[in-house]
Amino acid sequence: MSVALVGAGPGDPELITVRGLKRLRACEVLVYDRLVADELVDEAPADALRIARDDFKQEDVNKLLVMHGRNGRRVVRLKGGDPFVFGRGGEEALALADAGVPFELVPGVSSIAAVPESVGIPVTHRGVSSMVTAFAANDVEKLDAAALARVPGTLVAFMGGAVVGRLAERLIENGLSAGTPAAVISSGTTDREQVVSAPLGAIAAAAHGMPTPALVVIGEVVAVREALSALRRSAA
Amino acid sequence: MSVALVGAGPGDPELITVRGLKRLRACEVLVYDRLVADELVDEAPADALRIARDDFKQEDVNKLLVMHGRNGRRVVRLKGGDPFVFGRGGEEALALADAGVPFELVPGVSSIAAVPESVGIPVTHRGVSSMVTAFAANDVEKLDAAALARVPGTLVAFMGGAVVGRLAERLIENGLSAGTPAAVISSGTTDREQVVSAPLGAIAAAAHGMPTPALVVIGEVVAVREALSALRRSAA
Repeated sequence: MSVALVGAGPGDPELITVRGLKRLRACEVLVYDRLVADELVDEAPADALRIARDDFKQEDVNKLLVMHGRNGRRVVRLKGGDPFVFGRGGEEALALADAGVPFELVPGVSSIAAVPESVGIPVTHRGVSSMVTAFAANDVEKLDAAALARVPGTLVAFMGGAVVGRLAERLIENGLSAGTPAAVISSGTTDREQVVSAPLGAIAAAAHGMPTPALVVIGEVVAVREALSALRRSAA
Repeated sequence: MSVALVGAGPGDPELITVRGLKRLRACEVLVYDRLVADELVDEAPADALRIARDDFKQEDVNKLLVMHGRNGRRVVRLKGGDPFVFGRGGEEALALADAGVPFELVPGVSSIAAVPESVGIPVTHRGVSSMVTAFAANDVEKLDAAALARVPGTLVAFMGGAVVGRLAERLIENGLSAGTPAAVISSGTTDREQVVSAPLGAIAAAAHGMPTPALVVIGEVVAVREALSALRRSAA
């Protein structure tokens, strides 16, 4: 395969997959996202061409991948999380297919479950939630808040840190209880991880000033974290 | 840490994380799910105690983990996908916390995105879907089909293979178009992988006889797969 679209995982460099690391260590060209851990960028061979994706528009990233792929170089496109979860991997795959360049998809650990898990929140939990809805929250005014307020189970908002106040307002206006447990997790799984939890009606105030990127988790599963923490404290 | 709850990933053994493999190779006791790849079970040290989880009830699995953890053994609990996505990892974590046994969570690549990705379906795709809802479909009559039919974006049904006909009926009865693209993926990411796609109204007939476990994907993103396949064919 000439181009591999590889998920780097949620932040912690050891959460890349075995195959992802193998492709990375064998690449000749590495195109990487800004949020990918430095330790992973360092795993590419010393003489590999390193290209920071954030210097380019998406269409130019597509062109770069096609160009190096056509030249027969072993290209790794390293993306935060999973390439197909809010990662625009589908667009890159279509561009490569359109150009006739062979490519491979190497999934990664998505933040959907791994980031909440990192702070002790299971996105599904027997008797509490058997459903999880993940969505991109950055365009908060365009969200179908009525449908989100109505769907059972856990909500996970990507790119939700900067808009958590407005997100909470819109969900509460549409019928979700202001008492629903919520959490905001910044830089989940990394050594800069921060977490706050509060009822939905108070989460914006609690999370004020937290750095982005941040994930917002809303639902009764957030209370499992409190139960775990309490048990761990009483055991300590 | 004495007990590590480790996600094995969606099936392909190279999709375990680097940390997960490290824990597995250092364990003294391995408690594993039936669906975990044999290649991963073989990665445990030759003298490690291997326990197939399926011989036990969940409460007995919890007891086993607590018992070996209390004895200070390095225990790995290896689960398909991610421990906290329909994996009952939360229950095991609570049992360990309750017993005062230290534990660590090592996330895995969940089937949510990786299994659709394996057949070329991005669960999110710019301009097509910016939302994904994953749910356990086995108890199909108890699902809130009205909410599922109403939520925008992609639906991913775990344990959906055996009930796909009834699931499709209930979603269509609740207003989801019978023409919505759908796919059933059996043993995704493994060398036994099979996939069929059809409009929702015809998916049960198309998927008839497919082996379980199978994941059902419903939404316009399924059409991205057709676009990718067509481009690849025309390039070949």
